[in-house]
Amino acid sequence: MGDVSEKVRLTLKEVRALAHAVLSQQGLAPDHVAAVAETMVAGERDGCASHGIYRLLVCHHTIKAGRVSVDAVPQVTDVAPAMVRVDGGGGYAQLAFALGRPILSEKARRCGIAALAINHCVHFAALWPEVEALAADGLIAFAFTASHAWVAPAGGNEPLFGTNPIAFAWPRLGSYPFVFDLATSAVARGEIELHRREGRALPEGWAVDVNGHPTTDAAEALAGAMLTFGGHKGSALAMMVELIAGPLIGDLTSAESLAHDGGAKASPFGGELVIAIDPVRFMGSSPQEHLQRAERLFEDVVGQGARLPSQRRYEARERSLKEGVEVPAALLADIRALLD
Amino acid sequence: MGDVSEKVRLTLKEVRALAHAVLSQQGLAPDHVAAVAETMVAGERDGCASHGIYRLLVCHHTIKAGRVSVDAVPQVTDVAPAMVRVDGGGGYAQLAFALGRPILSEKARRCGIAALAINHCVHFAALWPEVEALAADGLIAFAFTASHAWVAPAGGNEPLFGTNPIAFAWPRLGSYPFVFDLATSAVARGEIELHRREGRALPEGWAVDVNGHPTTDAAEALAGAMLTFGGHKGSALAMMVELIAGPLIGDLTSAESLAHDGGAKASPFGGELVIAIDPVRFMGSSPQEHLQRAERLFEDVVGQGARLPSQRRYEARERSLKEGVEVPAALLADIRALLD
Repeated sequence: MGDVSEKVRLTLKEVRALAHAVLSQQGLAPDHVAAVAETMVAGERDGCASHGIYRLLVCHHTIKAGRVSVDAVPQVTDVAPAMVRVDGGGGYAQLAFALGRPILSEKARRCGIAALAINHCVHFAALWPEVEALAADGLIAFAFTASHAWVAPAGGNEPLFGTNPIAFAWPRLGSYPFVFDLATSAVARGEIELHRREGRALPEGWAVDVNGHPTTDAAEALAGAMLTFGGHKGSALAMMVELIAGPLIGDLTSAESLAHDGGAKASPFGGELVIAIDPVRFMGSSPQEHLQRAERLFEDVVGQGARLPSQRRYEARERSLKEGVEVPAALLADIRALLD
Repeated sequence: MGDVSEKVRLTLKEVRALAHAVLSQQGLAPDHVAAVAETMVAGERDGCASHGIYRLLVCHHTIKAGRVSVDAVPQVTDVAPAMVRVDGGGGYAQLAFALGRPILSEKARRCGIAALAINHCVHFAALWPEVEALAADGLIAFAFTASHAWVAPAGGNEPLFGTNPIAFAWPRLGSYPFVFDLATSAVARGEIELHRREGRALPEGWAVDVNGHPTTDAAEALAGAMLTFGGHKGSALAMMVELIAGPLIGDLTSAESLAHDGGAKASPFGGELVIAIDPVRFMGSSPQEHLQRAERLFEDVVGQGARLPSQRRYEARERSLKEGVEVPAALLADIRALLD
């Protein structure tokens, strides 16, 4: 056995090629492969290891469990002047988003604001690549998705909400967009699993045990319920995400997604709501002035020593584009084993 | 002097009449009086004392300081198929919202989703009466507004954000809507002022002093900066509100609102963004089924002993509609003194 901390340097081109090879080998159709691989390249490139090539193992598990349609053909429906629906037909959400994105952008530009519902998809990735793509189209974007019921409402002790992220993007002048993508749970579920594997105690406020008592034991937390961030306020936001990414778009709640999973431990299944606003419309005759005023806000955050949400990610991106990325040798071996 | 805890019972009709009398006496135009009074009646009715008739004193101060246009005539502009702007012309936001509401509703129904920008208004009230009104129209609604720069970003120590609330409403079947209205600051500024008046220490995590050090001293907190709820996640959401209720709609940031105030200690001045979605559009052919699935979510929250965000407010409403409200005698005397 080699050193567990051993790392291997890959170019982003090599990361992409690896993702393509593994996903194709699993039987995923070429258009899905291209869309899914790109989100993994983005995760690895931006230093989000848990959303990088590690996800090839997650996809392998979900595909093997028969929980994703590998050749689903997403169906687009023009719902209303400012609304479009893409039914993913049980496939990964990436291709559905890729098909919906230009229609959403066009509708937002025509109507000022527009919404995209992505339905019946498997979700394994973060939302920031999607809102960032819309910011690249010059739009302000919001995205919401439910997941599996792991999180209790404030004052409760039974898992009901997913990690229910809220993502937001704002196009900036001469800079990467302002982007955040925050779970409404206190932490990502993967963080708790990591603590369990490493035998570390959880910080207070992350979870309760099966009896609803606060716990710092990771195994008890996984058997019990995670908590939302920010107490009853985070809980209210988690409920909002549950409603607007579930019933509003006619798709599953986190509890229904977990029931649908039936113990397969596959990625969450359900919907996603994306909202895009064309800033030029409300900004009227002087969009440059107002975008410049937004820049002053960003400067006022950074100027007092605080960080902007995606700053670390963009720093990693700058490095990765020049130097490639480093991935654990053991992870790479596990992934390459899938190709045998 | 009477007992400071002495209370006087008023019917809601009496509350309304008092608000009308005081606001009219201050010179506010009749259509503004009607709109502003109604939000105070709603606050008092729902047990939100700080947004009830107490606000007559706040309005009196702002009007006397010349910081509100008492006879502003809001101007409506049809910006785009799914966007409407109401320029309040320096008046209170209530009348601007009242004028924009039917247009926003009609656009949301036609386009599926729509946005209303309220500009150049004085804001003294909570946002929940507005999203609740849109829920009464059968719509899902979001509202956002900046305020005065009192809150530091996570990791910083200088006031930059307002208390920047996020409000949300979801129409329910046979019940008051699901509504929340949460400040992205750790608490309302009034809470800190209350602690100062009563000489009580603040809980940790509410504020920092002028040097950016955590403080539990209310006076030091008011001189320093409030903090957001939920650490860097709450801070990211506060920034989002600052952007979408400020530059996006061509209106003031919280820092600009405070600068505009110039020490007058008047209510915040600026914009508000309201987004409405017609649930029937995305829910397609079976809205009743999906609204019913949302009801199950609410039941699953309440069934495990947790509370829904507006539950306490609706309980107060039920009582007030039957029994009227109790207001402090001293407050009533202060308000009636304005009529002399």
